[in-house]
Amino acid sequence: MKIVVDMMGGDHGLEATLPALKKFHESHPDVELIAVGDKAKIGEVPFEVVDAPEALRMDAGIMDVFRDKTSSMAVSIITAKDRGADAVISAGSTAAFLSLATLRLKKMEGILRPALISDFPTLEGGKTTILDIGASNENTPEELVQFAIMGSLYHKAVHKKESPRVYLLSNGTEEDKGKDVVKQAHKMLKESKEVNFLGNIEARETLSGDADVIVADGYSGNVLLKSTEGTAKAMSKLIKKAFKKNLLTKIGYLFARSGFKQMSKTMDYKSTGGAILLGINSIAVKAHGNSEPYGFYSALEVAYKGAKGGLLGEIRKGLKDGSAA
Amino acid sequence: MKIVVDMMGGDHGLEATLPALKKFHESHPDVELIAVGDKAKIGEVPFEVVDAPEALRMDAGIMDVFRDKTSSMAVSIITAKDRGADAVISAGSTAAFLSLATLRLKKMEGILRPALISDFPTLEGGKTTILDIGASNENTPEELVQFAIMGSLYHKAVHKKESPRVYLLSNGTEEDKGKDVVKQAHKMLKESKEVNFLGNIEARETLSGDADVIVADGYSGNVLLKSTEGTAKAMSKLIKKAFKKNLLTKIGYLFARSGFKQMSKTMDYKSTGGAILLGINSIAVKAHGNSEPYGFYSALEVAYKGAKGGLLGEIRKGLKDGSAA
Repeated sequence: MKIVVDMMGGDHGLEATLPALKKFHESHPDVELIAVGDKAKIGEVPFEVVDAPEALRMDAGIMDVFRDKTSSMAVSIITAKDRGADAVISAGSTAAFLSLATLRLKKMEGILRPALISDFPTLEGGKTTILDIGASNENTPEELVQFAIMGSLYHKAVHKKESPRVYLLSNGTEEDKGKDVVKQAHKMLKESKEVNFLGNIEARETLSGDADVIVADGYSGNVLLKSTEGTAKAMSKLIKKAFKKNLLTKIGYLFARSGFKQMSKTMDYKSTGGAILLGINSIAVKAHGNSEPYGFYSALEVAYKGAKGGLLGEIRKGLKDGSAA
Repeated sequence: MKIVVDMMGGDHGLEATLPALKKFHESHPDVELIAVGDKAKIGEVPFEVVDAPEALRMDAGIMDVFRDKTSSMAVSIITAKDRGADAVISAGSTAAFLSLATLRLKKMEGILRPALISDFPTLEGGKTTILDIGASNENTPEELVQFAIMGSLYHKAVHKKESPRVYLLSNGTEEDKGKDVVKQAHKMLKESKEVNFLGNIEARETLSGDADVIVADGYSGNVLLKSTEGTAKAMSKLIKKAFKKNLLTKIGYLFARSGFKQMSKTMDYKSTGGAILLGINSIAVKAHGNSEPYGFYSALEVAYKGAKGGLLGEIRKGLKDGSAA
């Protein structure tokens, strides 16, 4: 298995990627790692390094991105293509990564639109897979049906769960609820035989763990992802504030600490590693921009599990068999 | 000022509405209250009662709703129309209330689409007004511009804030981000002179307090509302679980309690009272279905503030003057 890694992208650059990659190399000796970054700064490492010292500028416009062939992100994606890598990973700009990966690695045959996919932690300690979270703005019913298939295969490959429970995001659970594209997708999914489709789900149930996969158009999925993350962050701030109120509450924290550490673990977005662009000819993992070593390591783990689970092959097969696709 | 109240709607019916109304009557002697409900059960009260003993059935189909002229909700809305009430309020089914209010009270002249509006508590203890949260599924750019005007006038009338800061929900802060309808609305709002428009806002900033008003199409606004509420609820569950972990954490709660009580107050959705349908010829307030007396009282308070602030007149005026409307 071959994984190409952009070492320079993300807020922390090498400070995050290098320790993560070293640790990953130790724990996964079966993987051929190709690190793309500043060779001089990376120094002696027990895996291949391709020299590309400059990260993509965060303020690069879309035309700059398309012309760029020297940034560590561009070189990573080009290397992934030339070397037939199973996965490529970067913590750089999401928009640039989506554009470059789609441009250079190309859509899989039969795929209408690639989708950006991410896992949410659930209250029960499991994961819910959501797609699309922003590769598109608007989607057709046919695209939503493909997202359901891809999401289901992803969840199966990465989380090892047979027959994942797939839901469609809507503003009501009844099948006639939602905008037209959602109502049409609902009808098509009900007929579909490859997906274990269980109906509509409302945005308030995202964290309940009832769904393994939630399908949404890219714009709504993005709103869902960001409002969930934003609210969780806001609540965490309020918890800190509550414990800091006065001396008594500070003492309370000392007693209650262990419970809240467990809570942080349950709600740990970093452990989900980042997002994957599915539907192109490689597993393209976008790690969180502010990833620290642990988060970047989790993203590498996601790429690894996807490749190990034969995700791309499964999607190719799923699309061929799939009458709904 | 005249307010008509559906006494029988909502999960708790008279148990919630009657104590709330009695208290409201005491604190607002200037308001003429018309209670619509089961006269025998309501008994002796110091305000007018219109007899309509039956609540609308929760499983009523849309055609039942349109034909219905005897349920407490239908009678409330008809009474509001006949008596020229300033506001009408119900805790019954949202879909039925929206349909009936629009059908019987009619859209205001010049309004393209009514919008359902709600307040979110912010981290700083303020309120952010969000619309549309579900009266429509999809909206045109022109409708979004009207929502911005209505939301701004609502915030000014109810929260007494001059020149409310208005943002447009999108999946990025740059003005070229979002689906087409959002990009077009952005351009129109930038030109608008009646609205203090400050640009796009992402769903993760909803609770930050940066925005006084957030404008969204009904489908996305509904996703935003429900995922924020759902995540806040999920986090509250986790906090309880954290404190209940073991004896030590339980002791911790005793010390930290005062901080967390303050937090509950900050995040108290019930204090926002419910949602208002704006753009029809009355202030139609939909109280939360599970409102208890305190929540229903808050909803009455919202209706009162809107009427007192001359909200309907302001909207009529705003639409007439508004080049953007």
